[in-house]
Amino acid sequence: MTPAGYAVQQRGRFLAELKKLVSFPSVSAQPRHREDLRACALWLRDRLRAAGLAAELHPTAGHPVLVAKSKPRIAGPTVLVYGHYDVQPPEPLELWRTPPFAPVIKAGKMYGRGTSDNKGQILAHINAVVSYLATATPLPVNVIFCIEGEEEIGSPNLAPFLKRHAAELRADYVVVSDSALWGEDTPAVTYGTRGVIGFEVRVDGPNRDLHSGVFGGSLANPAMVLAQLLAGCVDAAGRVAIRGFYEDVLPLTAWERRQFRRLAFDERAYANQLGVPVLAGEKGFSALERRWARPTLEINGLTSGYQGPGQKTIVPAWASAKITCRLVPNQRPATIAALLRRHLRQHCPPGVRLTVSGEEGAAAFIQSPHSPAAQAAARALTKSFGQEPVFIREGGSLPILPVLQKTLGAEVLLLGLGTTSDNWHSPNEKFDLVHYRKGTAMSIALLTELGGLRL
Amino acid sequence: MTPAGYAVQQRGRFLAELKKLVSFPSVSAQPRHREDLRACALWLRDRLRAAGLAAELHPTAGHPVLVAKSKPRIAGPTVLVYGHYDVQPPEPLELWRTPPFAPVIKAGKMYGRGTSDNKGQILAHINAVVSYLATATPLPVNVIFCIEGEEEIGSPNLAPFLKRHAAELRADYVVVSDSALWGEDTPAVTYGTRGVIGFEVRVDGPNRDLHSGVFGGSLANPAMVLAQLLAGCVDAAGRVAIRGFYEDVLPLTAWERRQFRRLAFDERAYANQLGVPVLAGEKGFSALERRWARPTLEINGLTSGYQGPGQKTIVPAWASAKITCRLVPNQRPATIAALLRRHLRQHCPPGVRLTVSGEEGAAAFIQSPHSPAAQAAARALTKSFGQEPVFIREGGSLPILPVLQKTLGAEVLLLGLGTTSDNWHSPNEKFDLVHYRKGTAMSIALLTELGGLRL
Repeated sequence: MTPAGYAVQQRGRFLAELKKLVSFPSVSAQPRHREDLRACALWLRDRLRAAGLAAELHPTAGHPVLVAKSKPRIAGPTVLVYGHYDVQPPEPLELWRTPPFAPVIKAGKMYGRGTSDNKGQILAHINAVVSYLATATPLPVNVIFCIEGEEEIGSPNLAPFLKRHAAELRADYVVVSDSALWGEDTPAVTYGTRGVIGFEVRVDGPNRDLHSGVFGGSLANPAMVLAQLLAGCVDAAGRVAIRGFYEDVLPLTAWERRQFRRLAFDERAYANQLGVPVLAGEKGFSALERRWARPTLEINGLTSGYQGPGQKTIVPAWASAKITCRLVPNQRPATIAALLRRHLRQHCPPGVRLTVSGEEGAAAFIQSPHSPAAQAAARALTKSFGQEPVFIREGGSLPILPVLQKTLGAEVLLLGLGTTSDNWHSPNEKFDLVHYRKGTAMSIALLTELGGLRL
Repeated sequence: MTPAGYAVQQRGRFLAELKKLVSFPSVSAQPRHREDLRACALWLRDRLRAAGLAAELHPTAGHPVLVAKSKPRIAGPTVLVYGHYDVQPPEPLELWRTPPFAPVIKAGKMYGRGTSDNKGQILAHINAVVSYLATATPLPVNVIFCIEGEEEIGSPNLAPFLKRHAAELRADYVVVSDSALWGEDTPAVTYGTRGVIGFEVRVDGPNRDLHSGVFGGSLANPAMVLAQLLAGCVDAAGRVAIRGFYEDVLPLTAWERRQFRRLAFDERAYANQLGVPVLAGEKGFSALERRWARPTLEINGLTSGYQGPGQKTIVPAWASAKITCRLVPNQRPATIAALLRRHLRQHCPPGVRLTVSGEEGAAAFIQSPHSPAAQAAARALTKSFGQEPVFIREGGSLPILPVLQKTLGAEVLLLGLGTTSDNWHSPNEKFDLVHYRKGTAMSIALLTELGGLRL
């Protein structure tokens, strides 16, 4: 029997296994679930061992990382499948129509926390390897699973783990399914994501809130200074006005712009759905281009002075803003941080004290959509979904992707099996069982396609 | 005996009466004190009746207004003394070293809520009239006391009351002592105060907070639009950048600027006291000029998006700011409101919805410092304080002053008897008994001075 045939035959079992996997309340953010995470990882380890892989849990400062390798090692490429067994908190519980950790199938979809993010997607890849091994079909590639338990809390321990184990985990290709199809039936190769870096900008003025009548006019108003500093960060054309900000930006290619234009994307309907009168942003780019491939500077929050009802006539003692920049290839978070700090310092008037605090940030990710591996992935997607994939980018950040790319020296293939309506991080998360089945078929085809590539 | 001699002789009694007056917890903001306000007003009414005035409480929608008139009516000017018998809430009580409504004298100062604001100051004027009548000295002017019970909650019922009773309350001069001396020993004629008008500016964007990665760049960020709108309201020279804003501003005269320059005011020490590195504001004006005689646009508060610890990577659904403009003669609140609204509307980009809500505002007040009455007041101050007064303005707003001026057709003399260290509106409010005594002497002299003026 072929692996594909086996996968069809075993649908009932694969479904039961997804139900079982989703039933572990592996909420990484909640310390009371520590043992549930461990139990979930052990169940996965045992599943992979039973299939014939060498699987081990590796302790970290947080939740363990599961690593499983196919054996014996063959000549030919190595494919590392990355995923995570931890899930978002299910709260608010009262909004769930069925219990988050007692999965229920309704109208062809399985409901439960983690069904789509990421248990269903990772299990599709496991099912593929199981289908090869159960039918005694030689695996066309060496396979490594690396499944962590801390993705939903920012993967604090994964990058050091990958560095420590870089030699054992060396791979030619990394396959990640932790994202979405383009449409319900249209698969996608997501060949880029944006990076992100966050700051808190604080302006301190007088040592207390002051009466705006008695004192106002004689000293700088910290909230006004903050407004002016922030306003000065973006120009009238919607471009970030920080010198050097665009220096390292990889321009969109003509091919990319053509691809994006061809996508069915109705800007008017999108604006209506967001509830805004019209779209806005950097001049000269479409909405998709701005979301996927152009950097931004966004204010995430503002705090100053009196925020209650009515008026309080004060010059506030301080004002602060939270801002984040989304980054694109090849912007470096550290460079952007330095440019922003210099810009704010240079434009801050002498009547206040400025503090800019921030984090390290995460780089953007990009992989050529024209590589043999990307084309191999496209063939596997076409075969399993019955439709050619589109080549897209993603505006959000998957900080682990550039880390996988660099640490393992691998080409990363981001092949989402979920949909944007799967309620990730929301109540009533679900996974379409058609996508589970097609995802398994896709992974079986992908291993063959990648095995056929010349290294 | 002269009225001045009588006042010296009766010091003990006047002190006891101030103690009694302060012991009424006449907190207008707190409904539970309604009867205490009434008792306080009745005590004042009875005191004025006992002195020989025709005194009545007039009901309003809120707390009653006390009106007392000297009799018989003589030829010559009429002087209306305005004041208030209500006080600020005493909270936070734990910061008081002595009970707020059980006044205590320590080192020549009486401590208690309302001692300086406004019970001690209004009683000084009452003592003066008492001193004339008790010594059977003919009053040199007709005297009317108009003492309200709602000043600390914005005098909501006084303007309509004055309009209804304009004929009976017609006066040539209105004397108000509800402010401060320039220094501990230096009296002042405060011939101007600023007006004020407040707004809330709200910018609405998407119908919910959006993921700044998935959506950011494709729509206007309401917090950034707000920052840009606010930043555009003030230019690099610290001037309000709203077209027409300065149109009606009465320029400072050379005499005024000379007066202000002569005042002992150390900008360096003032900056240190406020805790700011350097002062700031509209170019071309001193700090005192900017506080007293130049209009401002101040941000009083900012609210948008995420304000907790760490980062939340969102495009916030909305952002809002509270702003107030301090106005100077002859700016009209309604005009300024219209200009600001037009300015914001014109500069608001199409990707958001703008809402500007606001109140009616209060006009600035100014009275010639060169008038015979102002000079008469200066003589009375010189005589009682042993020092010539300075002519100053005040940056805060006393909305009732222009109302008194216009409704009664009177010249308003603002002659503060408190000090800026009297802890108005703060715990441990106090009134210097030297100022109480000198204030009484000043009022006795003032009535004679004003009685001598030709109408």
